[in-house]
Amino acid sequence: MAQTSVLGRAGADLSVFSDPRSVAVVGASEDPAKWGYWLASGALTGAGRRAVHLVNSRTPQVLGQPCAASLLDLPEAPDLVALCVPAAHIDTVVDEGLQRGARGFLGITAGVADERALAARIAAHGARLIGTNSLGIYDASSDLQLMWGSLTPGPLAIVSQSGQLGSELAAMGLRHGLGVSRFVSIGNQSDVTAVELLADLAGHDATRVVVVYLESFTDGEALFDTLAALRATGKPTVLLTVGSSAASSRMARSHTGSLTSSLDLVDAACRAAGVVRVKTPAEVIDAARTLLAAPVPNGRRIAIVGDSGGQSAIAADVASERGLTVAPFPESLRESLAGMLPAGAACANPVDLAGAGEKDIESYATVVEQVAATPGIDAVVMTGYFGCYSQDIPALAAAEVAVAQRLGRLVDATGIPVVVHTMGPESTTAQALWSCGVPAFGSIEAAAGALAHAAELCARPAVDSAATEATPDTAVNPGYWAARELLAQKGVAFPAGAVVNTGADLATLGALQAPYVLKAGWLEHKSEVGGVRIGLADAAELHAAFEDMHGRLGDGDYVVEEQDVRDGAVEVLVSARRDPQLGAFVVVGAGGTETEVHQDVRVERAPVSHAAARHMLDDLRMAPLLRGWRGRPPVDIDGLADLVVAVSELIAHRRDIAEVELNPVRATPHGAIAVDALVIPVAGQEHCESTELGDDT
Amino acid sequence: MAQTSVLGRAGADLSVFSDPRSVAVVGASEDPAKWGYWLASGALTGAGRRAVHLVNSRTPQVLGQPCAASLLDLPEAPDLVALCVPAAHIDTVVDEGLQRGARGFLGITAGVADERALAARIAAHGARLIGTNSLGIYDASSDLQLMWGSLTPGPLAIVSQSGQLGSELAAMGLRHGLGVSRFVSIGNQSDVTAVELLADLAGHDATRVVVVYLESFTDGEALFDTLAALRATGKPTVLLTVGSSAASSRMARSHTGSLTSSLDLVDAACRAAGVVRVKTPAEVIDAARTLLAAPVPNGRRIAIVGDSGGQSAIAADVASERGLTVAPFPESLRESLAGMLPAGAACANPVDLAGAGEKDIESYATVVEQVAATPGIDAVVMTGYFGCYSQDIPALAAAEVAVAQRLGRLVDATGIPVVVHTMGPESTTAQALWSCGVPAFGSIEAAAGALAHAAELCARPAVDSAATEATPDTAVNPGYWAARELLAQKGVAFPAGAVVNTGADLATLGALQAPYVLKAGWLEHKSEVGGVRIGLADAAELHAAFEDMHGRLGDGDYVVEEQDVRDGAVEVLVSARRDPQLGAFVVVGAGGTETEVHQDVRVERAPVSHAAARHMLDDLRMAPLLRGWRGRPPVDIDGLADLVVAVSELIAHRRDIAEVELNPVRATPHGAIAVDALVIPVAGQEHCESTELGDDT
Repeated sequence: MAQTSVLGRAGADLSVFSDPRSVAVVGASEDPAKWGYWLASGALTGAGRRAVHLVNSRTPQVLGQPCAASLLDLPEAPDLVALCVPAAHIDTVVDEGLQRGARGFLGITAGVADERALAARIAAHGARLIGTNSLGIYDASSDLQLMWGSLTPGPLAIVSQSGQLGSELAAMGLRHGLGVSRFVSIGNQSDVTAVELLADLAGHDATRVVVVYLESFTDGEALFDTLAALRATGKPTVLLTVGSSAASSRMARSHTGSLTSSLDLVDAACRAAGVVRVKTPAEVIDAARTLLAAPVPNGRRIAIVGDSGGQSAIAADVASERGLTVAPFPESLRESLAGMLPAGAACANPVDLAGAGEKDIESYATVVEQVAATPGIDAVVMTGYFGCYSQDIPALAAAEVAVAQRLGRLVDATGIPVVVHTMGPESTTAQALWSCGVPAFGSIEAAAGALAHAAELCARPAVDSAATEATPDTAVNPGYWAARELLAQKGVAFPAGAVVNTGADLATLGALQAPYVLKAGWLEHKSEVGGVRIGLADAAELHAAFEDMHGRLGDGDYVVEEQDVRDGAVEVLVSARRDPQLGAFVVVGAGGTETEVHQDVRVERAPVSHAAARHMLDDLRMAPLLRGWRGRPPVDIDGLADLVVAVSELIAHRRDIAEVELNPVRATPHGAIAVDALVIPVAGQEHCESTELGDDT
Repeated sequence: MAQTSVLGRAGADLSVFSDPRSVAVVGASEDPAKWGYWLASGALTGAGRRAVHLVNSRTPQVLGQPCAASLLDLPEAPDLVALCVPAAHIDTVVDEGLQRGARGFLGITAGVADERALAARIAAHGARLIGTNSLGIYDASSDLQLMWGSLTPGPLAIVSQSGQLGSELAAMGLRHGLGVSRFVSIGNQSDVTAVELLADLAGHDATRVVVVYLESFTDGEALFDTLAALRATGKPTVLLTVGSSAASSRMARSHTGSLTSSLDLVDAACRAAGVVRVKTPAEVIDAARTLLAAPVPNGRRIAIVGDSGGQSAIAADVASERGLTVAPFPESLRESLAGMLPAGAACANPVDLAGAGEKDIESYATVVEQVAATPGIDAVVMTGYFGCYSQDIPALAAAEVAVAQRLGRLVDATGIPVVVHTMGPESTTAQALWSCGVPAFGSIEAAAGALAHAAELCARPAVDSAATEATPDTAVNPGYWAARELLAQKGVAFPAGAVVNTGADLATLGALQAPYVLKAGWLEHKSEVGGVRIGLADAAELHAAFEDMHGRLGDGDYVVEEQDVRDGAVEVLVSARRDPQLGAFVVVGAGGTETEVHQDVRVERAPVSHAAARHMLDDLRMAPLLRGWRGRPPVDIDGLADLVVAVSELIAHRRDIAEVELNPVRATPHGAIAVDALVIPVAGQEHCESTELGDDT
């Protein structure tokens, strides 16, 4: 098959790594315990397409092929050089390769002394390096196999920061008949990066689904932009990563030298880019197979159809735990099902056929067709015995396959995916289901998990506008008053207030209502030094507090505010941060002084739409407090969502801001007011901060 | 094999269902689509041990055997009668069976009109019924097979409320070479119950692990006592149940007519009885295989040893998510490992061999031996390539099996389990691992999940005393003051207080310190009717409040208390309840008016030991508040745990109490005080309640 253009989004020409004109394996060996054996024997499988040169200074022949003593002895320039020699010899071999005009190097060897210098020398010659510490590369379209192990062609591209994990993915896929289109173990990424390799997949026709294992997210914004672009071309990505435990973070640090990024940010980036994030290799394969076979559901609302009450109930638990919704059917559908099914049948969702399938095997299809035709159902999970009839009752084999085909036609016609858990995963019916576009798994967790992962592709909150990075009109000024002003410009409400510098200024505050709050606005950590007073009941108390504070802290921009004492206010945290790797994010959560205890936060990539902000708030554990707890009136959640949008747009549009924190925002039925604000510029700039009012309440 | 005594703990003689002297299958058929085919052909497999009679009025012969027209025509009395006839014929067949002296009936048929009456008629004759709506029974020790499908002998007993789910468990087990000792599909439990059948397994020699699927917990206390007794005889139980989602609860209701019990209570009962609770059939089989092959770990602290940084990090995430602890190794072990392993190796936990295994395959065993010898390690998880050497490098096959055997000897010698995730689950090395007592799985979630489930057998909190059900000395009196007195007797502290009936009584309260709280103690819902006043600053305010309240609410036992105004108190919920099915439980949680929002509670079976109560408190999300938040002094957690123990003993020992609720308990550095109390007697008795003070704050 001819290779299509390999100028990916990143613009790099990586064709030497996907379809080199010729290959030289340096360190070729006959010993299967050595890398040189696997690289050499793999390279030779492509000898019909390109010249393959084996190099080893200690032997004239390897695997029945002549072996050159050095690259300098080859009859022609090698296009791609695979490095399987001890680390101490790397420099010499690379220099010889560059001297011969090689365009690419594949660094298998680990433990190279100064890898940065090596990569720089290669780049200086206009060549490229994958690795070092790579397990190898593979491209099914061009018969290129330069790796430990061997692969089988298929639609799955694997790009992995851990070579062995990439191998496990390939092996697991193969156990389910899923082959590989391209495999790249990216190793230390000293030159060619994951982002470049992923961009290059856009033009790789054989690739239909992309799998990435990454444990660090250097250049994460470009990475997720690339994955969003791949998704737009119809190639969804399944991302496997680590960092949910302290132990794996420890591991990633010692393993690659880079800090594991916060997984919550990665998940938010995945939602924004339309990337499926999974936790294990088995989940990768289940999700990839499902994305290849079936349409993506339009949402998370599923119907469960089973022929055993127990299995259906387990399916409901497992699906719900994975974030799918199993809502009761509308009354009309229940009645219709009750009319078709025996007396003991469950008709509310889950459906239990209660013997109907046994009496008439077509019942499975009839019932699935009925529920799939119901508005508000995004997908159907079938669970139970279906798939076993052909094994246990040979006379029903053809009828069972016919039902499978009927289900396939339903999926084709409606675009509503049907995923099956069958007790007979190795039956001919199970095979028929797969080939009709109906994934059929041998366990309910695999079936529900794969469907839940597919549903992630539709679940991201819509963003109104791309994060256009406007040049800031002004720098971020220090101090609380400046933070207030910046945020107020974006529409965030604060209590009425004013700057005062002297006791005389207090006389000008006639418009402000008591009780008052007094803050030493220019100080970074006011509360620790007595730079905040709240609950000042009248002008006299305010005066006394000012005199005391001024006496202790000296001249500066003091801020007087009306204290927000509205009844039934709910304290909310609204914050935003710019991650150096992954970009801008906005956070909402339970606010106040115990935010860290509650661990009740939601994060999304900034900016967010009003709908997305609303969803973040509605999704909090503390959301019942916002909706009106114990008979209190509900707070103005839409107004609060507007505030979240404003903060998200600020962090997205102002690259000079590292962090914004409003805690607490006091949300009431009559709007939300921020009573504390902190804006931190990116490193090197001053930051302006208010007191943490909550400390003193 | 001779059958051992089948008089189980429940005392019932169920031998007719495990080794009947003779069997009659009524409704025998030649059509594999009919139950009568499976029961008849299964029964005939035991024809060498017992007489098998086939009955069908429509045909003289089935499966090559003569067929009687009715039970009355049999040459001898049938010991066990299997009922595969339509529901309309059941009564007749049962009557004939009883007439002939049958001791047992197996009800396959579903939809019997008046099943209760049927069961009563059978019982009146001293016979027993399993079912109806059973999928069948099987006993490997006595060649008894009366069910849909066929089974293979092995060590696993399956008792299932859903027949088809039982079949799935058996089929999944078989796919992994795990056979069945006894199978009982209990159906509707109209007569013989799950508890009786489980008790009967105590004397069933062939059974080594018990698997139960239940969706209702009628007689739950006896059930868990039975499972605890089985565990004591060396037969651990794996329990599969449902109810974590609203949808499965809906399902269980419509399916069996009984409400699904609260899963939190079931889990607490499992911890107390030493039962492993799992969520899916696949988890059942993984856990059962692991319990059969390997020792139970002494705790949840694991070491991870891998040969890929990526796989080790994923293992850490997956294990942590399943409740295992992956703590950093002590410095001495890290140094020792660093001395053995290459420069790039990770030595802190997880361990990444970083090529050491490739250089010397014995490294796997050497490193596992080292970490297993370290105090504080309860189990080892190996992850990665080990198991593939024999596939990829035939010269290493014998060496790899030798390492497997060395790991097995380590497990034998230390009792510390080693569980392996291998990329080559079908290799000869993987088989060798299993037969050496080292479970080897093809996915990390199976390996970590099975180990986590095995660890549940050691994780239950110790209980100091059995729940001796003392006769209450006095009945539960109504009113808040009575609740206070009852709890104070058990050691629960309350604010100083007194009962007053008239304004004049207030003059006698000289010893009480202001501020005061006044409660209309006899009312059930005081706060709703203005029956609570707090913050009464002095005697005058108390007097005024009393006059007002007395004027509105009339005569009664008013309670005056000192208001607890200690600084930095943390509000905690301590409650207890008697579940009608599952017994007594104690609950701790975040207290106050927003308890339901926080969803931060822990529940255990009552009574609990001090250590268990302490663990419940330490495990709360809000525990940092108890330990001293933001520089505040820690509260007296041990004193709080004592209060929890007292409440747990009260609910355990007083069968006349349905519920106790203390919310809030105000915990401070100087002890915990309950400022609200509610005691509800079991139905039919008065209940005594205080106001909900929090409503008014």
